Amino acid sequence: MKLTRRYRFSASHRLDTPALSVEQNRKLYGKCNNPYGHGHDYVLDVTVAGWPDESGQIVGREALDRLVGERILARFDHRNLNMDIAELRGAVPTTENLAVAIDKALRDGWPLPARLDRVRISETERNIFELEAQRSEIKP
Amino acid sequence: MKLTRRYRFSASHRLDTPALSVEQNRKLYGKCNNPYGHGHDYVLDVTVAGWPDESGQIVGREALDRLVGERILARFDHRNLNMDIAELRGAVPTTENLAVAIDKALRDGWPLPARLDRVRISETERNIFELEAQRSEIKP
Amino acid sequence: MKLTRRYRFSASHRLDTPALSVEQNRKLYGKCNNPYGHGHDYVLDVTVAGWPDESGQIVGREALDRLVGERILARFDHRNLNMDIAELRGAVPTTENLAVAIDKALRDGWPLPARLDRVRISETERNIFELEAQRSEIKP
Amino acid sequence: MKLTRRYRFSASHRLDTPALSVEQNRKLYGKCNNPYGHGHDYVLDVTVAGWPDESGQIVGREALDRLVGERILARFDHRNLNMDIAELRGAVPTTENLAVAIDKALRDGWPLPARLDRVRISETERNIFELEAQRSEIKP
Amino acid sequence: MKLTRRYRFSASHRLDTPALSVEQNRKLYGKCNNPYGHGHDYVLDVTVAGWPDESGQIVGREALDRLVGERILARFDHRNLNMDIAELRGAVPTTENLAVAIDKALRDGWPLPARLDRVRISETERNIFELEAQRSEIKP
Amino acid sequence: MKLTRRYRFSASHRLDTPALSVEQNRKLYGKCNNPYGHGHDYVLDVTVAGWPDESGQIVGREALDRLVGERILARFDHRNLNMDIAELRGAVPTTENLAVAIDKALRDGWPLPARLDRVRISETERNIFELEAQRSEIKP
Repeated sequence: MKLTRRYRFSASHRLDTPALSVEQNRKLYGKCNNPYGHGHDYVLDVTVAGWPDESGQIVGREALDRLVGERILARFDHRNLNMDIAELRGAVPTTENLAVAIDKALRDGWPLPARLDRVRISETERNIFELEAQRSEIKP
Repeated sequence: MKLTRRYRFSASHRLDTPALSVEQNRKLYGKCNNPYGHGHDYVLDVTVAGWPDESGQIVGREALDRLVGERILARFDHRNLNMDIAELRGAVPTTENLAVAIDKALRDGWPLPARLDRVRISETERNIFELEAQRSEIKP
Repeated sequence: MKLTRRYRFSASHRLDTPALSVEQNRKLYGKCNNPYGHGHDYVLDVTVAGWPDESGQIVGREALDRLVGERILARFDHRNLNMDIAELRGAVPTTENLAVAIDKALRDGWPLPARLDRVRISETERNIFELEAQRSEIKP
Repeated sequence: MKLTRRYRFSASHRLDTPALSVEQNRKLYGKCNNPYGHGHDYVLDVTVAGWPDESGQIVGREALDRLVGERILARFDHRNLNMDIAELRGAVPTTENLAVAIDKALRDGWPLPARLDRVRISETERNIFELEAQRSEIKP
Repeated sequence: MKLTRRYRFSASHRLDTPALSVEQNRKLYGKCNNPYGHGHDYVLDVTVAGWPDESGQIVGREALDRLVGERILARFDHRNLNMDIAELRGAVPTTENLAVAIDKALRDGWPLPARLDRVRISETERNIFELEAQRSEIKP
Repeated sequence: MKLTRRYRFSASHRLDTPALSVEQNRKLYGKCNNPYGHGHDYVLDVTVAGWPDESGQIVGREALDRLVGERILARFDHRNLNMDIAELRGAVPTTENLAVAIDKALRDGWPLPARLDRVRISETERNIFELEAQRSEIKP
């Protein structure tokens, strides 16, 4: 059985890579390359898999909320992804790279008995990203 | 090809297990342990898998609606999960255990040609449960 | 300028009035009269009206949240409307009467500088109730 | 990693098969058999799978939008599925058959480096269809 | 106090006026002028105003549903607005004119004790139309 | 009759006023005061009022979209509200002040025959701001 629990956070970012010229960045990222950045209300869905214990729960809601709160929301909510997130420094904070960073932050030393099955992050309802396995690197 | 069809029902419940003390129940279930219960508008997504027949349909909508209506909505809609549902008597009506009960009620003697693929139930948009295989027991 | 801020709570209730017979109650309220009750995820939209002060805000978000939290959420969330809410004792806890009770709980001694403009409560997305003026009585 | 990107289009259709009598069509398709047709706002979710390249993207948003725009939206949006879509001529334009047609239109000669993983189409939020593998025929 | 109750129906239409040339119609209505039409899932919100009676209700849900069902859903759901709706014959079935027709169908001989306050119809979530007073004519 | 048409844009901002100390800003705006800012997906609902002309429309959709596109989306979408918006320079870019700026940008020299009735902007679904009359000043 799987439980998907939903969280939200708001952040700003700018897409730009030093490997490209100003014109190339502009062409590649379009308005996402605007110099002072913009932002989104991200939706984060964390899916865990297991079987209900005697309490009738796969995972304690409070334990999962505390974990996501400490590892993700406290670090990413109301932040600038280019400036505030160490593992995105030097990387392009696309939602792909953000998904890798969040997946890794949750997966490393995952402390709960229920298995972490999937991390899904929506930039908007039009762009939804999913990771189902452990991943390690962020592309610059 | 899969078809997911959506149903809704409203029910009340209280989370409390006789195996624990008043204080332990309070600590474990928080406000879900409040003595007179509370309720939710559940969303039930039933997914069937198959291939369209000559009518262009995987499954007749009317046949599926009648099945879900008789086995689930007629029994669970506008009910108290602690009091009205035989297979939840003595169990803690968490949405995990509710999902097991609904999955079993649909799966046992499934009469339609399309295969029952998945049962998904949302307590709220923040808590979504999925079952993809036959399951039998409800934890007390 | 108006600001509408959204809150959510879950509660259970049963519609039944002692003024009517069992059959009359059954006919009047349908499945909402089922003996052990059912529940909903209510959405509460509180609208205040004013003009932004030097901080650029009509009302401090924290002050409004604390007020709604103390007067409404702490009392109504994860509760049984028939049993737990003093002003609904002896009344039928339809969403109409619930709206009157919530409107009154907010309006009496409203302490914020921005004016309370409207209270809106959704039982489900299909049933939305609005109150725009002070009201006093709850119908039994 | 998977990216699901959402598109929308509006179309009309009528469900009716010449293989059946007027009464049989009426019984099989109900009000979907009404003589002058009706319509829906379809939601199309296209899922691609891959790994972010140096730009931090699985797939360029512009390239995917152009592909879906040319192959699907330009042909299906604001159209009559019975009259305007060559591959549905002579078929019953159920959403099952529509999903097969859209899946095939996207899959044949798929030009992008990221793999096409899933095509999902919602007739309404109550009826969602998914195809995860290449399919070829439309049932008459 | 106001109660807004939500209904849904699906219909097809084509925007075209005989007063204009083919090119003018094409320019005026764009893809809504495509020859075989298209369709939408309309959302209809009916708002009534009143005060709860002894049953705790502004209006009986069943009475309102029956009225909207007979006057609107039975006539407009799964229909072609150009062909099936008498009062839109010869008119352009824009959602503006549809709103006038629905408003009038509800308002004429309104039989319920609660006052009809507002009729709101959404073509899609991007286009929402409201009528708050009695209106009579449909523009050709 | 009123037509509400929906637009979306994404932007970043930081709430901070030079009139206050670092500690006071931190206390007043909380995490919205984080030094590198954050962002939101804003929803803008523009309501116009009028009566359908011979084309059956209150307002041409294309004319309204072009107006909102030029005056609002081209200036605010994928921008930083502190840096990119002239009339918010020196002001605190709360959504209140943003609403005033957008309302004014639309209202000054409004060129369409249908009346501009209301400007509504949602920061998130939890915070919705409305302006129904002409306003002029932005508070610093």
